[in-house]
Amino acid sequence: MEKYVHGGDIYSNRCKIDFSASVSPLALPESVREAACRAFDRCSAYPDPECRELRRALACKEGVPEEQIVCGNGASDLIYAVTRAVHPRKALLYTPSFSEYETALSLEESEISWYSCRSGNEFTLDEGFIEAITEDIDMVFVCNPGNPTGTAVPTQILKKIAERCAAAGCVLVSDECFVPLMEERTEEKVSLKSFLSRMPELFIIRSLTKVFPLAGMRIGYGLCSDSRLLQAVRAQMQPWNVSLPAQETGTAIVQEPEFEAKTWRLLREEKKCLFDAMRELGLKCLTPSANYIFFYGPEDLYEQCRARGILIRDCSGYRGLFPGCYRVAVRTHEDNEELIRVLTEIREDGQKNHT
Amino acid sequence: MEKYVHGGDIYSNRCKIDFSASVSPLALPESVREAACRAFDRCSAYPDPECRELRRALACKEGVPEEQIVCGNGASDLIYAVTRAVHPRKALLYTPSFSEYETALSLEESEISWYSCRSGNEFTLDEGFIEAITEDIDMVFVCNPGNPTGTAVPTQILKKIAERCAAAGCVLVSDECFVPLMEERTEEKVSLKSFLSRMPELFIIRSLTKVFPLAGMRIGYGLCSDSRLLQAVRAQMQPWNVSLPAQETGTAIVQEPEFEAKTWRLLREEKKCLFDAMRELGLKCLTPSANYIFFYGPEDLYEQCRARGILIRDCSGYRGLFPGCYRVAVRTHEDNEELIRVLTEIREDGQKNHT
Repeated sequence: MEKYVHGGDIYSNRCKIDFSASVSPLALPESVREAACRAFDRCSAYPDPECRELRRALACKEGVPEEQIVCGNGASDLIYAVTRAVHPRKALLYTPSFSEYETALSLEESEISWYSCRSGNEFTLDEGFIEAITEDIDMVFVCNPGNPTGTAVPTQILKKIAERCAAAGCVLVSDECFVPLMEERTEEKVSLKSFLSRMPELFIIRSLTKVFPLAGMRIGYGLCSDSRLLQAVRAQMQPWNVSLPAQETGTAIVQEPEFEAKTWRLLREEKKCLFDAMRELGLKCLTPSANYIFFYGPEDLYEQCRARGILIRDCSGYRGLFPGCYRVAVRTHEDNEELIRVLTEIREDGQKNHT
Repeated sequence: MEKYVHGGDIYSNRCKIDFSASVSPLALPESVREAACRAFDRCSAYPDPECRELRRALACKEGVPEEQIVCGNGASDLIYAVTRAVHPRKALLYTPSFSEYETALSLEESEISWYSCRSGNEFTLDEGFIEAITEDIDMVFVCNPGNPTGTAVPTQILKKIAERCAAAGCVLVSDECFVPLMEERTEEKVSLKSFLSRMPELFIIRSLTKVFPLAGMRIGYGLCSDSRLLQAVRAQMQPWNVSLPAQETGTAIVQEPEFEAKTWRLLREEKKCLFDAMRELGLKCLTPSANYIFFYGPEDLYEQCRARGILIRDCSGYRGLFPGCYRVAVRTHEDNEELIRVLTEIREDGQKNHT
């Protein structure tokens, strides 16, 4: 129907290993698998529209009252719903960033003001963005860590953005889906959660299905202390938006903090190895703060990899990026070695063809 | 968060048997269960945004080109998306009917023109409704069979509605979710599918999860021959709206026509028994054309049933209905006998209290 513009398109491209979706490569705990199969056996029932059990579990995990949580059919459901609920006349976005913010705003016919992050600064958000939050802006989207860039928003900039949005009375959507996989674990430094209670304009989006490899299941949630905004967001979503398997599996996942810690440790180690190996191959990489690496490579690299059974994310279609921009997920040691083997082979083939 | 206003609320009301959701009471075929568990093991991948395999399977089942099918996170996803895509200035609805049409239209701030079906005529749609489709109407919702009433829209009325909408250039949404469970099996008589190719304004909504007891899984789809309307509907939904388990289980379901036929036969037999038993109890029932029965009873019947572990659908909250209106799903013989036992007990208790 429409052009496929996202990562993880294993449906058009049968591949051996998918590095294009930034999801944990670990196998799920057996307890979660069992919960999913049990959930299936209860699927003759409609899901709970209020996601009561899941919200209770998330409230414990996040240390936030369950009344401040709204669940969605994946994080995208929340991006669309909050945009519809706010219906901003004018919004501020920056490049490069996740494309769904722009898509959701376009449906609302919002005017979008664009801020360009500097490639020389690894596309890191800087003070200039704060100045761009003017009084006429109704909504701001920030993604930390950056997607697809993987660079972290500096803590001071993040806080200043929140303060500026609060002062301007504009809704700040902070997409923190990859925060649990950031190398920096001090939440104060990477998340705006501590602003929640004092900033009703703040809407934080999180996902359970990056650390837990369940992207196909669709479990996202939003945190907000403004009950009116929260209810407006909920009203934009159909009553049974989060499937019964997603609710029950999500509730089971939250009981597995050890899996989360194990995943974080493994991916931190593996990221270091992969990053070093990619640089040794002469590939210029941005500083990866989470479980994926943004890098520059030859313009035909996507096709070259695909021909070898490896799917990487071609980022040339992102607003503000250009041909030769790529993203790969950090996977298991074995998978990453295969990626390096393929990248090495492509480089050697290229050198042969030039001699 | 918000008041629960739908059937199937087993989450607030722990019950022995749920008659409030009109879903098949049969156990799923083992092949479908296996497909669901296999799907779970592939859930580290994102779902296919284009639902290619599911749409191919549905195209075979429905005899409609796959380009004319759009999949949704349950039928409600499609109700919301088509309403957003059309963004009607003025819409026509009738009472009583499924409440989500009004909810979706309210989000678009559409003006709603209401037509009241006559209770004396079992709330059946009649010629008057056709006259209400005036030139200023942009969108019409028809639900066949009626929900919660269970009465069928007469074939001639259905066709005239389609012709009038086509002439008026207004979008007709025909909610046919329960058509596969209607007693009348000649599709020509109950469905507008034969109008699809010649009527671009027609959008048919169907569901896989009434015949197959998978309401918790969320699998709905829309049929439409207007590629622009179809694309506009798709654009209103986030890319990964149909979960991977829903897509894969849905594809497996379609390979099980025998289960569908078996379910239809069982529920037709059981409906007859249940309907006769309810009438013998003195309950006034509308003619049930599908797998649920609408009836009138004492105003405290919902509470009386609930106290006995039975959940029925209290329909007093539907626009155009009033206290004492109820709906029950047809279930297995054993379940239905329990319902009759409970209804008998309630009647006897009532008689005792009055003597």
